[in-house]
Amino acid sequence: MEIKEFQEGQSVDFHALIKSISLRETKTGKEYGAVELTDRSGAISGNLWDITDKQKSELTSGVVVHITGVISSYQGKLQIGFQSIQPTSEKAQEYVEAAPADLEKVMNYLTEFISSIENKHWRVIAEKIFEKHEEKFRAYPAAVKVHHAYAGGLAYHTSTMLIKAQAISKFYPWLNKELLCVGVLLHDIGKVLEMPGLFGENYTTEGELLGHLELLLEEIVEICVREDINHHEEDVLLLKHMVASHHGKLEWGTISTPRIPEAALLHMIDKMDAEMEQYRKIYEVLPKGEWTTSKEFFLGNTRVYRGNI
Amino acid sequence: MEIKEFQEGQSVDFHALIKSISLRETKTGKEYGAVELTDRSGAISGNLWDITDKQKSELTSGVVVHITGVISSYQGKLQIGFQSIQPTSEKAQEYVEAAPADLEKVMNYLTEFISSIENKHWRVIAEKIFEKHEEKFRAYPAAVKVHHAYAGGLAYHTSTMLIKAQAISKFYPWLNKELLCVGVLLHDIGKVLEMPGLFGENYTTEGELLGHLELLLEEIVEICVREDINHHEEDVLLLKHMVASHHGKLEWGTISTPRIPEAALLHMIDKMDAEMEQYRKIYEVLPKGEWTTSKEFFLGNTRVYRGNI
Amino acid sequence: MEIKEFQEGQSVDFHALIKSISLRETKTGKEYGAVELTDRSGAISGNLWDITDKQKSELTSGVVVHITGVISSYQGKLQIGFQSIQPTSEKAQEYVEAAPADLEKVMNYLTEFISSIENKHWRVIAEKIFEKHEEKFRAYPAAVKVHHAYAGGLAYHTSTMLIKAQAISKFYPWLNKELLCVGVLLHDIGKVLEMPGLFGENYTTEGELLGHLELLLEEIVEICVREDINHHEEDVLLLKHMVASHHGKLEWGTISTPRIPEAALLHMIDKMDAEMEQYRKIYEVLPKGEWTTSKEFFLGNTRVYRGNI
Amino acid sequence: MEIKEFQEGQSVDFHALIKSISLRETKTGKEYGAVELTDRSGAISGNLWDITDKQKSELTSGVVVHITGVISSYQGKLQIGFQSIQPTSEKAQEYVEAAPADLEKVMNYLTEFISSIENKHWRVIAEKIFEKHEEKFRAYPAAVKVHHAYAGGLAYHTSTMLIKAQAISKFYPWLNKELLCVGVLLHDIGKVLEMPGLFGENYTTEGELLGHLELLLEEIVEICVREDINHHEEDVLLLKHMVASHHGKLEWGTISTPRIPEAALLHMIDKMDAEMEQYRKIYEVLPKGEWTTSKEFFLGNTRVYRGNI
Amino acid sequence: MEIKEFQEGQSVDFHALIKSISLRETKTGKEYGAVELTDRSGAISGNLWDITDKQKSELTSGVVVHITGVISSYQGKLQIGFQSIQPTSEKAQEYVEAAPADLEKVMNYLTEFISSIENKHWRVIAEKIFEKHEEKFRAYPAAVKVHHAYAGGLAYHTSTMLIKAQAISKFYPWLNKELLCVGVLLHDIGKVLEMPGLFGENYTTEGELLGHLELLLEEIVEICVREDINHHEEDVLLLKHMVASHHGKLEWGTISTPRIPEAALLHMIDKMDAEMEQYRKIYEVLPKGEWTTSKEFFLGNTRVYRGNI
Amino acid sequence: MEIKEFQEGQSVDFHALIKSISLRETKTGKEYGAVELTDRSGAISGNLWDITDKQKSELTSGVVVHITGVISSYQGKLQIGFQSIQPTSEKAQEYVEAAPADLEKVMNYLTEFISSIENKHWRVIAEKIFEKHEEKFRAYPAAVKVHHAYAGGLAYHTSTMLIKAQAISKFYPWLNKELLCVGVLLHDIGKVLEMPGLFGENYTTEGELLGHLELLLEEIVEICVREDINHHEEDVLLLKHMVASHHGKLEWGTISTPRIPEAALLHMIDKMDAEMEQYRKIYEVLPKGEWTTSKEFFLGNTRVYRGNI
Repeated sequence: MEIKEFQEGQSVDFHALIKSISLRETKTGKEYGAVELTDRSGAISGNLWDITDKQKSELTSGVVVHITGVISSYQGKLQIGFQSIQPTSEKAQEYVEAAPADLEKVMNYLTEFISSIENKHWRVIAEKIFEKHEEKFRAYPAAVKVHHAYAGGLAYHTSTMLIKAQAISKFYPWLNKELLCVGVLLHDIGKVLEMPGLFGENYTTEGELLGHLELLLEEIVEICVREDINHHEEDVLLLKHMVASHHGKLEWGTISTPRIPEAALLHMIDKMDAEMEQYRKIYEVLPKGEWTTSKEFFLGNTRVYRGNI
Repeated sequence: MEIKEFQEGQSVDFHALIKSISLRETKTGKEYGAVELTDRSGAISGNLWDITDKQKSELTSGVVVHITGVISSYQGKLQIGFQSIQPTSEKAQEYVEAAPADLEKVMNYLTEFISSIENKHWRVIAEKIFEKHEEKFRAYPAAVKVHHAYAGGLAYHTSTMLIKAQAISKFYPWLNKELLCVGVLLHDIGKVLEMPGLFGENYTTEGELLGHLELLLEEIVEICVREDINHHEEDVLLLKHMVASHHGKLEWGTISTPRIPEAALLHMIDKMDAEMEQYRKIYEVLPKGEWTTSKEFFLGNTRVYRGNI
Repeated sequence: MEIKEFQEGQSVDFHALIKSISLRETKTGKEYGAVELTDRSGAISGNLWDITDKQKSELTSGVVVHITGVISSYQGKLQIGFQSIQPTSEKAQEYVEAAPADLEKVMNYLTEFISSIENKHWRVIAEKIFEKHEEKFRAYPAAVKVHHAYAGGLAYHTSTMLIKAQAISKFYPWLNKELLCVGVLLHDIGKVLEMPGLFGENYTTEGELLGHLELLLEEIVEICVREDINHHEEDVLLLKHMVASHHGKLEWGTISTPRIPEAALLHMIDKMDAEMEQYRKIYEVLPKGEWTTSKEFFLGNTRVYRGNI
Repeated sequence: MEIKEFQEGQSVDFHALIKSISLRETKTGKEYGAVELTDRSGAISGNLWDITDKQKSELTSGVVVHITGVISSYQGKLQIGFQSIQPTSEKAQEYVEAAPADLEKVMNYLTEFISSIENKHWRVIAEKIFEKHEEKFRAYPAAVKVHHAYAGGLAYHTSTMLIKAQAISKFYPWLNKELLCVGVLLHDIGKVLEMPGLFGENYTTEGELLGHLELLLEEIVEICVREDINHHEEDVLLLKHMVASHHGKLEWGTISTPRIPEAALLHMIDKMDAEMEQYRKIYEVLPKGEWTTSKEFFLGNTRVYRGNI
Repeated sequence: MEIKEFQEGQSVDFHALIKSISLRETKTGKEYGAVELTDRSGAISGNLWDITDKQKSELTSGVVVHITGVISSYQGKLQIGFQSIQPTSEKAQEYVEAAPADLEKVMNYLTEFISSIENKHWRVIAEKIFEKHEEKFRAYPAAVKVHHAYAGGLAYHTSTMLIKAQAISKFYPWLNKELLCVGVLLHDIGKVLEMPGLFGENYTTEGELLGHLELLLEEIVEICVREDINHHEEDVLLLKHMVASHHGKLEWGTISTPRIPEAALLHMIDKMDAEMEQYRKIYEVLPKGEWTTSKEFFLGNTRVYRGNI
Repeated sequence: MEIKEFQEGQSVDFHALIKSISLRETKTGKEYGAVELTDRSGAISGNLWDITDKQKSELTSGVVVHITGVISSYQGKLQIGFQSIQPTSEKAQEYVEAAPADLEKVMNYLTEFISSIENKHWRVIAEKIFEKHEEKFRAYPAAVKVHHAYAGGLAYHTSTMLIKAQAISKFYPWLNKELLCVGVLLHDIGKVLEMPGLFGENYTTEGELLGHLELLLEEIVEICVREDINHHEEDVLLLKHMVASHHGKLEWGTISTPRIPEAALLHMIDKMDAEMEQYRKIYEVLPKGEWTTSKEFFLGNTRVYRGNI
């Protein structure tokens, strides 16, 4: 039974993910929990009156729960009146939108690429970073709100960019193709330290104070020190520049602006893939011959059209 | 004998192209011609005293001349003292920098693409525009100063973009690939009406007053009227939008901003190819491990580095 | 009986214009129509339960209807409960705010000006455009929201600008007065292809994709081809430049920026008339000695004052 | 004999204006005067060796001198070798470019307008300011470099704006016409305290530190205090606002932005007259069918065209 | 009894300040007063039905009233139902948030500074301005919304800046310390003419039309005329420049930009004190280890963090 | 004998510093050295014809040489004709402009501060960075061109900022004073990796590719790893944020924008000290009552005045 099918007055029995839960007080001072639930079909809210201490510790965001209750309507919106709510051990990923790809294959593709890197410093750095952060890298979205904002989005975005980088670099044979590809592989992985995970809207404290470019650069330096690699040598230096410059312009929060063609190209492939993914998501729901009703901020802040042809 | 080999005091006998010639007056009121000469190796200037009326009509920019003379030095620069200067019938193209490709093949590739276009309106429009402007399209640079600024640059830039558009569109199968490719084919061809040709720095009056986006849109409308195609129909409308929006942002002189993914992608491929061509030109002369001495305005206004690796 | 006089509990019998109607569903899945009605005095909404197929086809935005019903209050706003609703053949224009001028005279003034144009190309272009678009030109507002946003606003704005252009050009006798005036006459008429008409907020697809400057330029080219006028000749070229540059600055969506004084002046007269019309509308309701309560975005984004003197 | 006719080697005897003179030292420590001379036809420079103390006090910028000497050429430019140089009592104005109007009539027009002002406060303020500054107001240019940059330009610019304000205000009868016209009359007269006069490039210290808008506002307040007018009353307040806001936008150095239509209109008429005057000056020398060779910073930073029609 | 303690259903008897009161009409056309009340603990609203003429004149914003009534709840917010409401003669200041300092001492400090000013012109100007505006200067906040927005904030902000100016100027002994300090003393006092006082959101008409920089400059000029000081002399001129330039940049509404180090420093101390005060206010309520939930517009438009250390 | 006293024709015998030397070729292909010499009084250039291999290796920028020769004049500038040129072992610092302070005391002050730091992590980081970079930190200017551009400028700028930070933090007792002061101590020390030293204009490759903020952050991370400090802990994290945000705004190349008051204050003290130092340098040469002749880019791009009082 999916949330989008619920109707007023219906008794329901379903599983869903707790997207968020916050403790509040009634006017008479009694605690209750305001719960937001989601599955891949939709979302519904409800208040858990008389919340127990056990519930307070068990029912946290990211937990999948089994619920029975009745659907009512309040101010024009459906809501759930809880009869029972029990935590389960199901995986949250089953209840959130997932990347449109087989993550196993995605990760294999990236792992194979890593083992094929010829520059030893770059390979060691890539291996160590993936060793440390692979689990989150595989689970996280590529951005909190804008593009590839679904579970596995970060890994998926990285892999589709890598495929494109391999193809596009053939047109510019005078580039250092491996530098470009290693840059693509690593450029966004600092997000595992910056983003709150699949749930929540706010960055981590580290993320707010330093940003994911800096956080990744620090990881690289730390690995170099531990692995006895001189991070001032030109191969590592250029890789750090790829990461530091991939936001392209100062006003977009880049640490430095691109000074080599590989860095400029990384930025452009990133931008291209992010924009096209936004169009793709819009086209999933926009009918032919129609305009979006609102302006898309990250697509030039204009309405978007889907042609009939 | 090439211009770059000339030395002070030397007697020379060579062929070169008149890049520009302007009539001036000495303080005593006598006319002379200030001549700029070029071959693919370099450039040299000289004054043609006692210029005759015949010379005034024969020696115009774009003419290849046979010259004898003596090299002297003035204010630290070499110059030519003319003994004789005769127009020849050689082709100017032989004396200007040319696109790094076989233009015959480039044009065949584009022509074949045109005949493969399935949408009939688009094919007719492309055929008619090429019929009318092919000669200039083949000869012109892609820009007066910045990128692909050599003979055949416009055709070459178009063909390399088309190759990339074909490759990149495979990654986004939900796009209208043909719309993208026809947009790429036509997007810059209005420059044949805007640019002064291979020589000269100023745009045509039409070019200054309307710009090459508008000039091409007018060509499309004119063809449609003559060929009895309704240019308000959606296929033509979307093609016009591809042209009208390919400069991406209002401050870059676009007529409209992209509203469909094909238009956004055309803009990004154009930008990518123009930037990478600038890097390529810089790398032709920049040694490994060196920085450009000045900032590159169109590459983020920064100095550019060429790594050792 | 005017809408602004309605009171809660009252039985009413009146005529009004359907500004918008949209089909919705009740929670139990029954269709109804959400209707917005307007006359020159005000606006009121109501829901048409049990809407019939006949009503769905007859009751569309822009239709004047005869209504009986009862006024009730919901969430602090008055609404109409329909007893009957019948389409009439009355003109929508009678029920929308109209330009503060006699449109007959306005159109006569413009028509006389057209027949007085001495440059033959310009006159033919003007005649053909008016032939084709006069009806809409006469009915449309000058802008969806900002200035001259009332029926006939486009024609009225054009005529008041033409009067000013005639007067101001006397101060600059070295200008081509006719070029200025023909530019004024035509500059905004592309809006008949861009705007949704008197009702609705969204531009047409053509309007969004190309903008009214481009749409008018295409009309001019089409007319020239059909009338065998060479649109590359300088008189037509300059007229096209007047249209293409009248938005003044790239960030305001101009196709080119003014390069001749007539084009610069057209832009300034347009801006002056639009701004002063906004002040006039504000002063219609703002008492002496008072400030507007909110900032006026198009008047420098400041509050506006009306002095006591 | 006019400066523009001078030729190398010629002995000359002429009158000219000292535009600037600065004392310098030779390498051996002897003082000389570097003199720039001008008449309405052109300009020439020369060095006055062995300058005497008498000359140092008599030969100052703005003095008309009688010169004999010989023309030589130095680094491609003509220069004058002085044989004699004598101050005369001729008026500098005869030797500088003058406004294209009869200044007597201009001043009469303005004076008549002042005496016709109905609001007593405004009339007194205008009278007192003109009493105090009329001489400079009549002599000064309207700007050091850009528009109306000739003797009498300030008075001329003011009068042509006033004529336009009278005409344009008829189209907007709901404006306070007198407020607009008094604003036009006074808006730029603070320049007599800001500008260095007819000669020199740098503003006065007061001008740099406060600007001509503020300097005029201070004059108005001072007059009000002396004439026992309460400058907080609304009529004076609105007039001060006209002055304080006439630069239109903060980035153009306005003290406040326009909040009333009269202020907005003053700004637009000022901008219109300044821009059109620049075009007029360009057209004085630009042939038909030609473009200016350089970009005009204050006309949108573009090249300017003069059409053939 | 404090407002923040009120609970639904409670009968209350308390004193509070009328923050605002506005007359409205019921649907049946009867007048009532919509009243907003505040004390230092919080705020509550209520409607005063059947408002009498006496009440209309007595109960104005800024009056402290004695109220009895009952607390009810409407749309989730508590409101007061009035049983009685009587004006008192208590001071409004007791009921608004006050500066965190002893205003007596603050004013003594400033007064002592004034009497210590050595430049006679500056001292007279300062004395006369304080004579005229001391009462409001002492009562007003430093800004309507952003920084030091509490009673006495203007005097408090001025005094803390003066302390800092005295300390910082020791590090730059080549500055004119007295000029800096007098500039600090006076720079914001024009706000007493610009701001609506402790209550209300809108600036005065003078404030909107001229701004507090200009209003203070006019005060200085007026004093100089009355006291027979030549305000064009350099000491007064530089003081006026301090005031005119203290907003630093044109886009922040400065009349001129700083041209002397004292003016640059005044601007920086002002900015520093305003920013740090905003942080202090945030830290009053933000727990350690937490981020503000929303972006702080005047602190770089970012969220703000309070560290654990 | 100082360079500024040299006169044309004079035989000279002096010591000076080689600021730059570059190898060039005469037209006939012979190598020579173009030498720029400086002492604290001025600068002079000359060509070293017939340069030997020994000279090529010995005479490098930064070497102090003993010279005999003759002064001639070329194109209005004095130049040196070399008779002999010998390297000496004198210190370059004696021949370049030095910070206006005793560097020994400056360094003692900073060293004492370091040993007084209470937070152990911060103290270790500071100690290790100074251990590694003290020599360059002591020698380098604070900026290549703008402020504190003299030997020892970096150490001097740091110490004067630290004194101010100590004083200013007293006004804001709720700040973490030590965090502020350690931030001040370290903020610019990354410049020793970014700048070319005392001579030369171009940044190092590392400096261009990453910038001095990033280079310092990497040093901190490296030290933490080696010293077994967890650099993700809040004390180190906040210190990194101080460094990463001290350029204040994204367009000024900051890595992140300030999110804590200590970071905001560091940025403001830095800006204040840099600006005031520029004024101080200008005032060293600008007479009272005078304006700088050109605009000062980093002081608001305006001319600067020095008052008479």
